[in-house]
Amino acid sequence: MKAEIISVGTELLLGDTLNSDAQYLSKQICSLGIEMYHQSVVGDNAERLKEVITEAFSRSDIVITSGGLGPTEDDLTKETGCKYFNKKLVNDEKALDMLKSFFKKANKEMTENNYKQAYVPEGSVVLYNNNGTAPGIIIDENSKILIMLPGPPKELIPMFEEYVRPYLAAKQEYIFVSRIIRVSKIGESKTEYLLKDLIDSQTNPTIATYVKNIEVIVRITAKAKNDYEAHKLIDPVAKEVYKRLGNNAYGEGDTTVSEVVCKRLIKNNITVAVSESCTGGLLSTAFTDIPGISQIFVEGAVTYSNDAKMRRLGVKKETLYKYGAVSAETAAEMAEGIAKSAGTDIGISTTGIAGPGGGTPEKPVGLVYIGLYIKGKVITKKLGFNGNREKVRMCTVDAVFDALRRELDEENI
Amino acid sequence: MKAEIISVGTELLLGDTLNSDAQYLSKQICSLGIEMYHQSVVGDNAERLKEVITEAFSRSDIVITSGGLGPTEDDLTKETGCKYFNKKLVNDEKALDMLKSFFKKANKEMTENNYKQAYVPEGSVVLYNNNGTAPGIIIDENSKILIMLPGPPKELIPMFEEYVRPYLAAKQEYIFVSRIIRVSKIGESKTEYLLKDLIDSQTNPTIATYVKNIEVIVRITAKAKNDYEAHKLIDPVAKEVYKRLGNNAYGEGDTTVSEVVCKRLIKNNITVAVSESCTGGLLSTAFTDIPGISQIFVEGAVTYSNDAKMRRLGVKKETLYKYGAVSAETAAEMAEGIAKSAGTDIGISTTGIAGPGGGTPEKPVGLVYIGLYIKGKVITKKLGFNGNREKVRMCTVDAVFDALRRELDEENI
Repeated sequence: MKAEIISVGTELLLGDTLNSDAQYLSKQICSLGIEMYHQSVVGDNAERLKEVITEAFSRSDIVITSGGLGPTEDDLTKETGCKYFNKKLVNDEKALDMLKSFFKKANKEMTENNYKQAYVPEGSVVLYNNNGTAPGIIIDENSKILIMLPGPPKELIPMFEEYVRPYLAAKQEYIFVSRIIRVSKIGESKTEYLLKDLIDSQTNPTIATYVKNIEVIVRITAKAKNDYEAHKLIDPVAKEVYKRLGNNAYGEGDTTVSEVVCKRLIKNNITVAVSESCTGGLLSTAFTDIPGISQIFVEGAVTYSNDAKMRRLGVKKETLYKYGAVSAETAAEMAEGIAKSAGTDIGISTTGIAGPGGGTPEKPVGLVYIGLYIKGKVITKKLGFNGNREKVRMCTVDAVFDALRRELDEENI
Repeated sequence: MKAEIISVGTELLLGDTLNSDAQYLSKQICSLGIEMYHQSVVGDNAERLKEVITEAFSRSDIVITSGGLGPTEDDLTKETGCKYFNKKLVNDEKALDMLKSFFKKANKEMTENNYKQAYVPEGSVVLYNNNGTAPGIIIDENSKILIMLPGPPKELIPMFEEYVRPYLAAKQEYIFVSRIIRVSKIGESKTEYLLKDLIDSQTNPTIATYVKNIEVIVRITAKAKNDYEAHKLIDPVAKEVYKRLGNNAYGEGDTTVSEVVCKRLIKNNITVAVSESCTGGLLSTAFTDIPGISQIFVEGAVTYSNDAKMRRLGVKKETLYKYGAVSAETAAEMAEGIAKSAGTDIGISTTGIAGPGGGTPEKPVGLVYIGLYIKGKVITKKLGFNGNREKVRMCTVDAVFDALRRELDEENI
């Protein structure tokens, strides 16, 4: 089968929005073993949209649209899809109920134009939306499949996972199944070097490595009739990959080093408190992103000012004076200070220069110290990052979790 | 004139690359007052690329391609452009010299296939590349303009700025100027409802509304001979839009509610401390995302546990016992507690159920209380959000800044 993507929205043509939906959908379609040769973007215009849909179906069996399912007058995707298939829009009771409860929960009044979102094409598959107001739609007739999804990624992605992936997978003779192994700290070339002979010799499954943010991804992909057959091909290769990467491989699939570390802490009931300067709350956020973290995450302190560092964490005035706020010494006192005042097993600190301002020749933008207080000892690490404020802050958080992960290995936790 | 973008590269169809070139080019084309109704993505396949180019020229005067100018065999854009215009490729001495010195500088040996990059279509405009090896090309014949640019943004962007923008600007009689008005708290349908008659009656300028993240954007776009004429058309309409939206409109252009609020706080030197439960550091992060915030952001406390709420913020045990951690009473004591202990003008608190777990019939997932201690009084707000943990947390942060913004309005700050 062949698929194509049509991204609908004038904001895309104006460059106001980056088309991340297209990238996500491309990956999914590829993983389903469905071929894709074309993608297009069209504005909120019924006539042009109909032309593009018609053309897409002249080349492809599946057309996936994103966007244009909103309540406003220029949201025309559903209406246009109906025109293409000569279908009427009919009210869907369940969609209407969900819409009403959505507005009730949000304490917002439902205006007249919202009701149109409860109308769906006759005889279509309705993809109920738990993260927004627009239901998605699948029209599957005369071996043409039109899949209409809402534009916001927070709605589109869960909807694809829940409804569209299984719907399309059921139609495929072969699927592509991947296992993702996540590697921290060692570069792509090093990873490739460790796996080179495997990469060269493997055909099914194939092995590919690529860099994502500051980690390396190893993707093992098998072509098979079903998941079971695929994993029978993948598992022995994955085992060998793990053997070669050692503890540089930190996790699998759609995870992060923070999730892996937090789950280990929760499992072993090891309590944590963090004190942040340069990361400004981002480290606490990374911890509290993890459901169930409240069991072990006692407290976070965003101590931006020196005053707060002294008052909250008991950092010594002399330390700040002698070494400065951005120093191993301050990082150490921050980590120990937060652990002791919160009474936790582990205390973590970050202090650095995220930029854009504040850099000096001795302490340039990107210089960061992290502190780790664990089992009565303090470890500090000096780090240097390139890039803007956001990147420095994100890289610091990743580095903290990687350092913590390796310490937990040391301690056999 | 009408333009379209064709992004060339199989990596785009596979979802390995995010198509940021398309967003950049869209913004540029729009700002030049050139209309764009279509964009497409096609893989590294000469036949399909030629089809897409032919089709694009059937509807548009200008076609801009990105990608496929590299030295490898599957880089076919230049060759395909030549086929469309029936042109020969000829060696360009200057391009060759630049290519040679590029490799010399990089201490790399020039391989045979690199030489093909010095070949350009006969009689075309050559866009010499100072940031890579592939020159860009403009073929401008019989009122069809094909502009071929290299894919890497660090090559494409400077090449567009240096050559393409002035080339196209010289051909434009009219430009388009937009004013973006940002609206918080009221949904897209409500916004459209308030502006409906304006939207329907306006032709130049036009008014469009769309949702971006958790806010609504109102875009007023005028077509005019120059900036001055455009703003003469836009300003009275903008004035009417502001009148109708009242202080739901919080800012203009490329900004966020958090940025607007933080700048007001910095400007008036009003100090802030925050205490977070459900947002877990995300609120502090939003503050500290803003450069220069250290002037007024004194401290953040992520008090996840009841113990930390009592110890750090002085929340009363009875309050937690009687009303629970997720309550207006707790939110109020948290906000006042952090402000007093940090000695700030404003104290902010968040407490709620971000999910996925922890919900009850009385206190469902998505229930959030925020507290605002300002000028000796405490305001609390009860909020309800749909969606997953991440969405609840993000919406809470947005709601805090919006509530704070409205309080600053009240206080004429």
